[in-house]
Amino acid sequence: MVKKKFLVLCLFCLMDFPLLQAEDGSKLWLRTPSANQCEPLEMDVVCKGVDKNHPTMKIAMRELQEGGWSQRIEYKLVKRKSSKAKPPAVDEEYSIYTDADGKALLTSASTQGLLYATYDLLRHKACGEPVECINKVEKPTYALRVLNHWDNLNGTIERGYAGNSLWKWEEMPQTISPRYEQYARACASVGINASVLNNVNASPEMLATAYLQKVKILADIFRPYGVKVYLCVNFASPKELGKLPTADPMDEKVIAWWQDKAKEIYQLVPDFGGFLVKANSEGKPGPCDYGRTHVDGANMLADALRPYGGIVMWRSFVYKAASEDRAMQALLEFESLDGRFRDNVILQIKNGPVDFQPREPFNPLFGRMPHTQQMVEFQITQEYLGASNHLFYQAPLWKECLDANTYCRQSDSSVKPTVAGITAQRLHGLSAIAGVANIGDDINWCGHHFAQANWYAFGRLAWNEQLTSEEIAKEWLKQTFTDNTDFVKSASQLMLDTREALVNYMMPIGLHHIFAEVHHYGPAPWYTEKGMRADWSPLYYHRSDSLGIGFDRTVATGSGGTAQYASPLFDMWENRATCPDEYLLWFHRVGWNEKLHSGRTLWHELCHRYQTGLEQARGFQKRWDALQPYVDKERFEHVQHKLKIQTHDAQWWKDACLLYFQTFHHLPFPSDYERPVYDLEQLMNFHIGLSLHGCPTRQQLRL
Amino acid sequence: MVKKKFLVLCLFCLMDFPLLQAEDGSKLWLRTPSANQCEPLEMDVVCKGVDKNHPTMKIAMRELQEGGWSQRIEYKLVKRKSSKAKPPAVDEEYSIYTDADGKALLTSASTQGLLYATYDLLRHKACGEPVECINKVEKPTYALRVLNHWDNLNGTIERGYAGNSLWKWEEMPQTISPRYEQYARACASVGINASVLNNVNASPEMLATAYLQKVKILADIFRPYGVKVYLCVNFASPKELGKLPTADPMDEKVIAWWQDKAKEIYQLVPDFGGFLVKANSEGKPGPCDYGRTHVDGANMLADALRPYGGIVMWRSFVYKAASEDRAMQALLEFESLDGRFRDNVILQIKNGPVDFQPREPFNPLFGRMPHTQQMVEFQITQEYLGASNHLFYQAPLWKECLDANTYCRQSDSSVKPTVAGITAQRLHGLSAIAGVANIGDDINWCGHHFAQANWYAFGRLAWNEQLTSEEIAKEWLKQTFTDNTDFVKSASQLMLDTREALVNYMMPIGLHHIFAEVHHYGPAPWYTEKGMRADWSPLYYHRSDSLGIGFDRTVATGSGGTAQYASPLFDMWENRATCPDEYLLWFHRVGWNEKLHSGRTLWHELCHRYQTGLEQARGFQKRWDALQPYVDKERFEHVQHKLKIQTHDAQWWKDACLLYFQTFHHLPFPSDYERPVYDLEQLMNFHIGLSLHGCPTRQQLRL
Repeated sequence: MVKKKFLVLCLFCLMDFPLLQAEDGSKLWLRTPSANQCEPLEMDVVCKGVDKNHPTMKIAMRELQEGGWSQRIEYKLVKRKSSKAKPPAVDEEYSIYTDADGKALLTSASTQGLLYATYDLLRHKACGEPVECINKVEKPTYALRVLNHWDNLNGTIERGYAGNSLWKWEEMPQTISPRYEQYARACASVGINASVLNNVNASPEMLATAYLQKVKILADIFRPYGVKVYLCVNFASPKELGKLPTADPMDEKVIAWWQDKAKEIYQLVPDFGGFLVKANSEGKPGPCDYGRTHVDGANMLADALRPYGGIVMWRSFVYKAASEDRAMQALLEFESLDGRFRDNVILQIKNGPVDFQPREPFNPLFGRMPHTQQMVEFQITQEYLGASNHLFYQAPLWKECLDANTYCRQSDSSVKPTVAGITAQRLHGLSAIAGVANIGDDINWCGHHFAQANWYAFGRLAWNEQLTSEEIAKEWLKQTFTDNTDFVKSASQLMLDTREALVNYMMPIGLHHIFAEVHHYGPAPWYTEKGMRADWSPLYYHRSDSLGIGFDRTVATGSGGTAQYASPLFDMWENRATCPDEYLLWFHRVGWNEKLHSGRTLWHELCHRYQTGLEQARGFQKRWDALQPYVDKERFEHVQHKLKIQTHDAQWWKDACLLYFQTFHHLPFPSDYERPVYDLEQLMNFHIGLSLHGCPTRQQLRL
Repeated sequence: MVKKKFLVLCLFCLMDFPLLQAEDGSKLWLRTPSANQCEPLEMDVVCKGVDKNHPTMKIAMRELQEGGWSQRIEYKLVKRKSSKAKPPAVDEEYSIYTDADGKALLTSASTQGLLYATYDLLRHKACGEPVECINKVEKPTYALRVLNHWDNLNGTIERGYAGNSLWKWEEMPQTISPRYEQYARACASVGINASVLNNVNASPEMLATAYLQKVKILADIFRPYGVKVYLCVNFASPKELGKLPTADPMDEKVIAWWQDKAKEIYQLVPDFGGFLVKANSEGKPGPCDYGRTHVDGANMLADALRPYGGIVMWRSFVYKAASEDRAMQALLEFESLDGRFRDNVILQIKNGPVDFQPREPFNPLFGRMPHTQQMVEFQITQEYLGASNHLFYQAPLWKECLDANTYCRQSDSSVKPTVAGITAQRLHGLSAIAGVANIGDDINWCGHHFAQANWYAFGRLAWNEQLTSEEIAKEWLKQTFTDNTDFVKSASQLMLDTREALVNYMMPIGLHHIFAEVHHYGPAPWYTEKGMRADWSPLYYHRSDSLGIGFDRTVATGSGGTAQYASPLFDMWENRATCPDEYLLWFHRVGWNEKLHSGRTLWHELCHRYQTGLEQARGFQKRWDALQPYVDKERFEHVQHKLKIQTHDAQWWKDACLLYFQTFHHLPFPSDYERPVYDLEQLMNFHIGLSLHGCPTRQQLRL
């Protein structure tokens, strides 16, 4: 009878795993089917200095089993000499040693480190790499590796393109989605250790007891995976939720309200991570409403959290309807506050000075506040990058920022050590990196199968910024699709090429923020409305007229934005002749007929870039089709479908931008380039009708 | 005072004619501004044997004046020896002799011939050709050069894409549009001498006295231009209009009704041309309804018209919901009737056996009824050719038919002499050619500026089939735009290239009739409906399945349609190995992986053709843009706009057809070709929602 059951199970297994099994993407990069799924292995696991029954260790061993690990494993928890690292940075360093037979010794000072070591070892296996003779020590580049979920309590996600929120607040506690644990597992597998559950445009309700009790549920599920929960708070919560007459951070009752709230939170979630705050930005409340500074607000919250080891991540993304260049405002507002923040406050700074554009120079705040802890905020979700319709691999964009040299210090002055390593350690040990998540309740989590790579890459880069974009892409491809060499080579190159392609077909040569209003999908360089804030209109950013185009940010004749960068960057960017083409229209107004470094005139170069981008998008389609033999039908066709939209959109961008710019100068298209297939009028009258949420469908994209 | 007026007039003239004046196309190819428009020339015109005040001569002289003719002209009406030509063929032959100073002698046996000579001379001038030392004799290839207007009495036009009907029946006689005379003038300028005013799907009301009185108005306007009016008649008119119990052509009362009607018509229009009849076709009434034959019906009408010199043009476009191959039915139905039609009956045969497709073999009826007068029916309006959205120069298509060798006679057995020259003269002198007009009340007459070229080319070819497509295109371009050599060379080549491009992007390799239902705009190879007539569905024509595609019309294994052609055509087309690629799927079913003459497999070749067509369409955009310096802004931009639609549609065709065919064989796209940007499902659910009338707008084409 037992034997019969075993046979049935095995047949089932065989049927379920044909060579190219149909896949829905729900397993992410954690797909490796167990070699012995039918019959659990009797594993040879030894634990030294650590309880085999520790929840984290139980996860580690389950992973080994499901990952088909068949060699002996020895876990060893070691005591480290007293670490200078303060909470919440835990000692996650680990080492892996395997002998010639693949027998492994995993060592760390924490169970969390041992779990990471386990995922690392299994990654070797899943990537088809040898698991013998490994001898490595790993420690994270950033202590805090944070996902920011812009999820609203009503289940929508601001800038979310993969369905609704994972967090089913209404269902809890009656129903606990299995996805909560799957999410924590996926995060842990790439080293993400912090999750801010709700939107930075936070509802005060988030801090209501009823919601905090549900937060506790998630925190309990995440805990054994080493993922701490954080919350975004609305600065006016004491007023809105607590019914106080004010939210002034100097008000005793307000201070007490936050202290009480912190106490309540930590009673439910003892290892709660802290708050992320968007204050006095885009109409949100903040300390400035009461004549206080960002320091006053952040420090008050930090003091409330301090007794429990919590931190405050305070966003620098603030800009007013002011006459100043929007790209300059954050520095103008924050630089003078340097050195005044508590040591459990960290300033969260978007990678660029405007807003998650396809290409921006790095944010000038980086390196300019040497006595303030800083962290970078990337946007994993593709608000300005074709939502979940475009294949866009973000690692190259992120590394461009992290690797950028700020020239703010004598040595090693790139953005990366500013927000991690050196600078942070000289301060209080708070090194952190955040990414706005692209995760929703879609079956494939991210809307586009390849968008999973950005979640993966964010985690991997946050752990080890030394990894190249190519290495990460290949790792992800091997685990997510197949380790076939030809496939991995071609697909990784395709991924790597998407960044420049998208810049080409959307906003080349330093153009920025010429998107359609509200939903930021598709081009609308013409968009403006009577009485609207100037800096909400693309006209503010491209400034086209009959003579030229571009935002003059020079000191000599423009806004002076170049002066926010240290020399020699300042000199290079200030000078029209030395400013590289990719940032040209970011820093300069350029005549339509002026020659660029490419040797082409500006108008010609614009045509060239848009045409190139369109052809690159078409190329992605061909290149993906060539990979059909390696990919299961379901995911192949899903990606194929999305690539059609991408090419379609590339044409849309090209036609819209070139036809619109042409209205200023009336120059003809250079002879070699394909002509528009749309009319400008048609494109200007085309509206998708999307809100902040959701991704346009094929139906909505009918041009 | 007089001088002042003169000055004002001259200033006005200067203002009105800048170098590239804005033009709306309303002047067609008759744009040459008078060199002395401000001050009428005192012309030196001598008339010999003809009254200077003859209405036609007054027109001729006005044309000379407006055409800026400044040399002496002598008109000479000569008596010809008794002509064998019967009515309605008039003696239109003319000669032109000019001396070294350009002094001209124009000779003809008719005022009509003298008017044609005048237009010919002015064409020389307008084309920038020398007007000195001309010595030419011209006579028409076809005696009847007929436009068929598919205009309904309610003002709509079946398959009309240039607005509503020119004929404003409701307005007459109170309002007489100046366009009636402009129309006759344009026809005369290219030698068109017959106009069938109403739709072949004729309303019986057309013959009501009230309408005939309005027909008389048009006939009176057209007469001095040599354009005779004809009417389409509904075979059931005696029943529907005359309230007789039957329309049986053998019924005495019916015969008398038609005789009375003929008498009434000729009392109003003494030179009325005759009837065009669509009978027993697509549900229309006809003699077969009463057990009579086409011969019975046609001859009865012919007898009614005979006393007045009228003729009957009887259409061969009949097909039943029969099991026979639709392409074979006309021959099966008509061949046995050969020799039985009256001598004032002429069989009007569509150029191809199906229905005005981008490419068809010639209609097998041509040459197969040696004792019957035949004429060809072309469709100037672009029912299946992108309506007035696509630039499609038809002369190459028409000449392909006219030049096709039927092998039905020993020598000179092409279609052309079958319907004109030799055969016709051996019979009764009725040589004729018809074109379904593309003219509406749009300001530019034809919807697309370049569609005017098809009206022009039809007239010119009908007059002189020896003219090449290139010569006609160049003539038209010089008069319509400019005689600049570079422009004419480039633009004429563009026009000549449109035919193969459209075949490529719509229906290459012999594919046919895979259009969307009703409006025939855009692809719908998938279209079928439960219970519909098989031959109204594209499935009937392409017959795709997992093995291959194509309509087997071989004798060996198919419908036997090849046998309707004489050897060696039969042998060539019957044999898969010798059947040329361009007719392959017309005559054969071919496996998706079979090799074609191109060396590519069928699927590869389909991809190649559609891709090539798309690229050709893109090329037209570039090539037109390069001509911007030569063209006024208004027309340049109008054509530029239409070319966008053409390219857009080429993509639509390519994606729709390739994706649909791919569902049968699942072969991948060859690596080199651009991938679809649309989804098949999306395209299958896309409906323009057009009737038979009107052309899709940019708005409707949003894909």
